[in-house]
Amino acid sequence: MSDMGDMGLVVVGAAGRMGQTLIRAIHTIPGARVAGAVERPSSPYLGKDAGELAGIGTINVAIVDDPLPAFAKADGVLDFTAPAASVEFAGYAAQARIVHVIGTTGCSADDDAKIAAAARHATIVKSGNMSLGVNLLAVLVEQAARALDPQDFDIEILEMHHRHKVDAPSGTALLLGEAAAKGREIALKDNSVRVRDGHTGVRKSGTIGFATLRGGSVVGEHSVILAGTGERITLSHQAEDRAIFARGAVKAALWARAKKPGLYSMRDVLGLS
Amino acid sequence: MSDMGDMGLVVVGAAGRMGQTLIRAIHTIPGARVAGAVERPSSPYLGKDAGELAGIGTINVAIVDDPLPAFAKADGVLDFTAPAASVEFAGYAAQARIVHVIGTTGCSADDDAKIAAAARHATIVKSGNMSLGVNLLAVLVEQAARALDPQDFDIEILEMHHRHKVDAPSGTALLLGEAAAKGREIALKDNSVRVRDGHTGVRKSGTIGFATLRGGSVVGEHSVILAGTGERITLSHQAEDRAIFARGAVKAALWARAKKPGLYSMRDVLGLS
Amino acid sequence: MSDMGDMGLVVVGAAGRMGQTLIRAIHTIPGARVAGAVERPSSPYLGKDAGELAGIGTINVAIVDDPLPAFAKADGVLDFTAPAASVEFAGYAAQARIVHVIGTTGCSADDDAKIAAAARHATIVKSGNMSLGVNLLAVLVEQAARALDPQDFDIEILEMHHRHKVDAPSGTALLLGEAAAKGREIALKDNSVRVRDGHTGVRKSGTIGFATLRGGSVVGEHSVILAGTGERITLSHQAEDRAIFARGAVKAALWARAKKPGLYSMRDVLGLS
Amino acid sequence: MSDMGDMGLVVVGAAGRMGQTLIRAIHTIPGARVAGAVERPSSPYLGKDAGELAGIGTINVAIVDDPLPAFAKADGVLDFTAPAASVEFAGYAAQARIVHVIGTTGCSADDDAKIAAAARHATIVKSGNMSLGVNLLAVLVEQAARALDPQDFDIEILEMHHRHKVDAPSGTALLLGEAAAKGREIALKDNSVRVRDGHTGVRKSGTIGFATLRGGSVVGEHSVILAGTGERITLSHQAEDRAIFARGAVKAALWARAKKPGLYSMRDVLGLS
Repeated sequence: MSDMGDMGLVVVGAAGRMGQTLIRAIHTIPGARVAGAVERPSSPYLGKDAGELAGIGTINVAIVDDPLPAFAKADGVLDFTAPAASVEFAGYAAQARIVHVIGTTGCSADDDAKIAAAARHATIVKSGNMSLGVNLLAVLVEQAARALDPQDFDIEILEMHHRHKVDAPSGTALLLGEAAAKGREIALKDNSVRVRDGHTGVRKSGTIGFATLRGGSVVGEHSVILAGTGERITLSHQAEDRAIFARGAVKAALWARAKKPGLYSMRDVLGLS
Repeated sequence: MSDMGDMGLVVVGAAGRMGQTLIRAIHTIPGARVAGAVERPSSPYLGKDAGELAGIGTINVAIVDDPLPAFAKADGVLDFTAPAASVEFAGYAAQARIVHVIGTTGCSADDDAKIAAAARHATIVKSGNMSLGVNLLAVLVEQAARALDPQDFDIEILEMHHRHKVDAPSGTALLLGEAAAKGREIALKDNSVRVRDGHTGVRKSGTIGFATLRGGSVVGEHSVILAGTGERITLSHQAEDRAIFARGAVKAALWARAKKPGLYSMRDVLGLS
Repeated sequence: MSDMGDMGLVVVGAAGRMGQTLIRAIHTIPGARVAGAVERPSSPYLGKDAGELAGIGTINVAIVDDPLPAFAKADGVLDFTAPAASVEFAGYAAQARIVHVIGTTGCSADDDAKIAAAARHATIVKSGNMSLGVNLLAVLVEQAARALDPQDFDIEILEMHHRHKVDAPSGTALLLGEAAAKGREIALKDNSVRVRDGHTGVRKSGTIGFATLRGGSVVGEHSVILAGTGERITLSHQAEDRAIFARGAVKAALWARAKKPGLYSMRDVLGLS
Repeated sequence: MSDMGDMGLVVVGAAGRMGQTLIRAIHTIPGARVAGAVERPSSPYLGKDAGELAGIGTINVAIVDDPLPAFAKADGVLDFTAPAASVEFAGYAAQARIVHVIGTTGCSADDDAKIAAAARHATIVKSGNMSLGVNLLAVLVEQAARALDPQDFDIEILEMHHRHKVDAPSGTALLLGEAAAKGREIALKDNSVRVRDGHTGVRKSGTIGFATLRGGSVVGEHSVILAGTGERITLSHQAEDRAIFARGAVKAALWARAKKPGLYSMRDVLGLS
């Protein structure tokens, strides 16, 4: 583990779509370099150059299947794999006493407990959404919802995604709804209005409404509207590119490099917790 | 009937909320003046000054219950009353050979036939929505929907209104949906998606989606989004004030003054039919 | 001074445009009532009913020229007058040990010192902009600017106002620019880009850009955009109605009723300081 | 030249950034296929597979330097090169009696005359901006500007682009301004307000205002706002991806295949001329 110069980062799942995006993100962000690339033992890409696979040219980092030697000479690990793998990688990161950024979703309570245990020796940043912008927006939404009286301001959440998305509302819309509900100290599930059609009656104070648009190739847009009498606040996020999740992970790693072992969130990275 | 100077306009239903708004609109628009104010024979406001009632000070126009003498000395009539009354006023406007602007909604086919008959001698402008902006937007939406391939561009319609609105989507959202459907030569009712929640599957090409927001005191906002691969067109209308319907009616009257008897729409007023 | 029931509020400058708006705002907000209405000794409106003048019907509160008796029987004062008058009213509010909400602008350092002195006995809320929404937005902008790296996110401030506004950018746009600059710990004046035209060169990192739109009857719209690589956050405020400043003042008074004497801001009212 | 099956298209300048984008666009749009790829005789890419170079895998089309044999066996040519080259290619397209889509900018009057002469035998579509959306927006803006009275509606044009753009306003913003001016039958240069800062005075009726935002990685967003008393129309275009210009060129070629020789614009392609 180096403590000066660019931060050396290992990408696990390096041959997958997200793995390649992570390698490209590391490549473009000052202060970070690709220090290793790990895949499953059965991967057909073992031995290939991780940079060539990601379309950025040769970087002299071969894809390997043994994480331990890769972690030993690195400063951090970027991990958008699967719960079982992430739990295992957290243990290795703890052994190597390095940073572990986990964007993996779907972890059980048991998985989370094991990751928390590893965080006694590893510096772990874990979040279900690694975008800096979405995490910041959630913090701002919670504050706005706390500051404004529910009798005076109605909260509505609008999202738009591309035509191929198969569910509604988006996970991020629900995350923002939870942030608003937390700010108001209510439960989202008891206070959300998911659709409106036909005779709806007047809007009930304190509810949180959702609306969904689908079309074209829109990567993802979310707006939280706080509408009062005579004025409105709108807090929005637009994603132009799916690479923002990879960029957020690299930013999290760079932030975590100077921190003590522990379990952190993107709110900590943003300095807002 | 004068053919020079400001256009003299009679407001029917002059003591009602819309009647008062019409009187204020005439008062602020150059080229028009209040020439008469008519109410039902049972109205408690008969004899009062129409300007005082509307909050613009004395204008020396008393509210009367007999339309004929009022029409005889005017250039036009502004009418947001009820179907039976509008049919009757159209007959009087034909006798006086003046302009009749009809914003009344809910007319039956029979009412419309009688109004069309009156239009042989009266210059009638009739529309379900007297806003210049909404009528223009509908024309633009129809053209855009016609020009863009439904396989390439998805159409979505978003509207927001105040918390007291009791139905969804708004009549104007449906009017815009009809304009889009007309441009594509399809039937809106067979191709609209009114709500999305849970597992929706991928968006079906050629459909027109609706989404509804409710909150605060928003007068009325509508957006039609045409979303393709890599680009999006959005055509929007924002109403800040309900007086736009009254202003549109006055504009329609001023436009109609120079026209021959006949039945016109707001598209004619906009020069877009 | 009562300590139960609706809060009794005195409006100073009660016959002016803002005074009338304040009287209407008190009238519509639960928990507040008009307890007095004060004007200059030379006002032609002395003795008139303040409610009638404001267009809400008789409220049995005559406009008087002596503030002291009015303050003595009230719980608070709403004041959008002028610096010299506000300093004097602060002294009377201190004597009466009541709430004093000051929306007056243009106070000198000396005026502010006198107001601060009065705040030993009066509960004073003072702000240059009494809108809840704008004050909340400024807090959120400051936090977002602090959380996001200036090398990664560019800040732009856009505002739109009606055609009659004679200066640019608006005071509120500059207030939001100051909030962004404070979050970044820089001076706005050394880092703002006020216009762009012709060959501008690439955008300089760390600057804060302004853009101005003028047209129609737009009351006031402001957006702060934080644009990074692949994602954007937009924080916006739309004013639909100038009455929001009066509503904010009433809200501030209701909040201050339970507070100890002292000098507060709208951030305190929002619970965000 | 085939008259059935997929349309065979030659890309000139095939190894350049736009040439590669064109090859990818042809590859993804049904009804078109890459029939040839031409580069300058000095190009180091001669002989390479055009598909491999563009990152879509081998398509068995080698890059060649002689346009004539390539044109002879194709149905159309896509050309975003330079004026002198485009004039030459137009002559070859006339000989081959095929479609020539020209996105080249900067042509002189003399170049344009030569291209028009070639259009006696070639079916040429030429436009300074090949995006379907931008061309459609320009048509809608012209109509809206014609329909609405300049005394009532103020026109403002807002654009946002990425931080690397070095000039302002964008060419597309000016193109939209020209469309608005044409609708009003005025000259843009005599009626545009390019910046606002400090004391501006009230907005002058009939002017067209511009405002520019710069930041992040925004590909290109344009809004034309028509702001009246109490209502506003906003007509917007958002580009998510520079590939829309290539896609528009392919769409233009497919449209032109069934047309007689002549000189067409994107308005013709959209059916809006």
